[in-house]
Amino acid sequence: MTNMNTMDKINKFRDDRDWRQFHNEKDLAISICLEAAELLELFQWKNPEETTANNLDRIKEELADVLIYSHMLASNLNLDIDEIIEAKLEMNNIKYPVDKSRGNKEKYTELS
Amino acid sequence: MTNMNTMDKINKFRDDRDWRQFHNEKDLAISICLEAAELLELFQWKNPEETTANNLDRIKEELADVLIYSHMLASNLNLDIDEIIEAKLEMNNIKYPVDKSRGNKEKYTELS
Amino acid sequence: MTNMNTMDKINKFRDDRDWRQFHNEKDLAISICLEAAELLELFQWKNPEETTANNLDRIKEELADVLIYSHMLASNLNLDIDEIIEAKLEMNNIKYPVDKSRGNKEKYTELS
Amino acid sequence: MTNMNTMDKINKFRDDRDWRQFHNEKDLAISICLEAAELLELFQWKNPEETTANNLDRIKEELADVLIYSHMLASNLNLDIDEIIEAKLEMNNIKYPVDKSRGNKEKYTELS
Repeated sequence: MTNMNTMDKINKFRDDRDWRQFHNEKDLAISICLEAAELLELFQWKNPEETTANNLDRIKEELADVLIYSHMLASNLNLDIDEIIEAKLEMNNIKYPVDKSRGNKEKYTELS
Repeated sequence: MTNMNTMDKINKFRDDRDWRQFHNEKDLAISICLEAAELLELFQWKNPEETTANNLDRIKEELADVLIYSHMLASNLNLDIDEIIEAKLEMNNIKYPVDKSRGNKEKYTELS
Repeated sequence: MTNMNTMDKINKFRDDRDWRQFHNEKDLAISICLEAAELLELFQWKNPEETTANNLDRIKEELADVLIYSHMLASNLNLDIDEIIEAKLEMNNIKYPVDKSRGNKEKYTELS
Repeated sequence: MTNMNTMDKINKFRDDRDWRQFHNEKDLAISICLEAAELLELFQWKNPEETTANNLDRIKEELADVLIYSHMLASNLNLDIDEIIEAKLEMNNIKYPVDKSRGNKEKYTELS
């Protein structure tokens, strides 16, 4: 699959199995949420400074699942991943001017 | 920012504000989960067949937030987004052989 | 345990195992979120009208987990479950006056 | 509402507004998940040891929302809250015998 980009590979995986028919946007959004929870579970009851070395493989898998479902939702809606990220960064650039936000945790926590 | 790739742009946004210091992996995983919930909220109480046209802008923003935090976690852990997605697709290829999974909702629901 | 109330039984379970020491509020909030996702997973890819009869036992277990962790967080913070629910209902009573909200889905969706 | 129990008060709030018609179980499960995320957001980017004193009111409200939607889902399915919690505690009692689990974080983390 070396000459295909990531979105093409994900779509090929889905279409090889004829799974597009099951992919309504609401259940894809649910799926992103569930995979994000499985990713978070790997950090539950752990100190934030604790090393991730012993479960890095699991983190890779769950983070990949979040990303795969995110691509699938984008595919359904004909969205370009790089474009929507860049557009959001530009919105955040206005919301968090560098001079007021730099090294400022208070400003930072308002990001969410 | 036209010659930078998406990860570079996200890292530049973070580093311009000196925010890397706040980014432990546990809170980034929490952030992915919270943004995924904000995305899901846009589908709450709606019929799965209902059009997304009237809130597509909000969907783009929340999906972008999920993706931005996912990139930030990957950056912390020196993971290549395309590589971890491709590795997971290969694992799924073994778990869901095309001949047994094709158009099969039962097999599909076991994906999660 | 017949003469104890639900909160007492949950606290006894925790204290019999000396687990209070692990219960910071942040990880309890994470745990509520993860159990809520496990509950939601039982509805993933299903039609909202589909019967819950065939996985009602799983629903009971996951809903109980959400409730148990919610009680544990309340216990940490010395909150009375019935009191905080009643206080929130009173806030919602003001926010959603009966005459304006009755049978009104639009008002309803603003609840969230 | 002094002589009604908590479930009765929640059902009265819902029925006064004729909102039962919107309450399918799938969207109630989504709602529990979204409220759990709003609760978790109050702990985002904070040290686990950080005091909750300055946002205790918000914690009460969001925890109450998780509990209210949990009661609504239980009401839909004719489940008794105290019964399902007690049944789950009994399952956990078998899974985590006191002598093997006491003060044992490793056993504890397997709980989730």
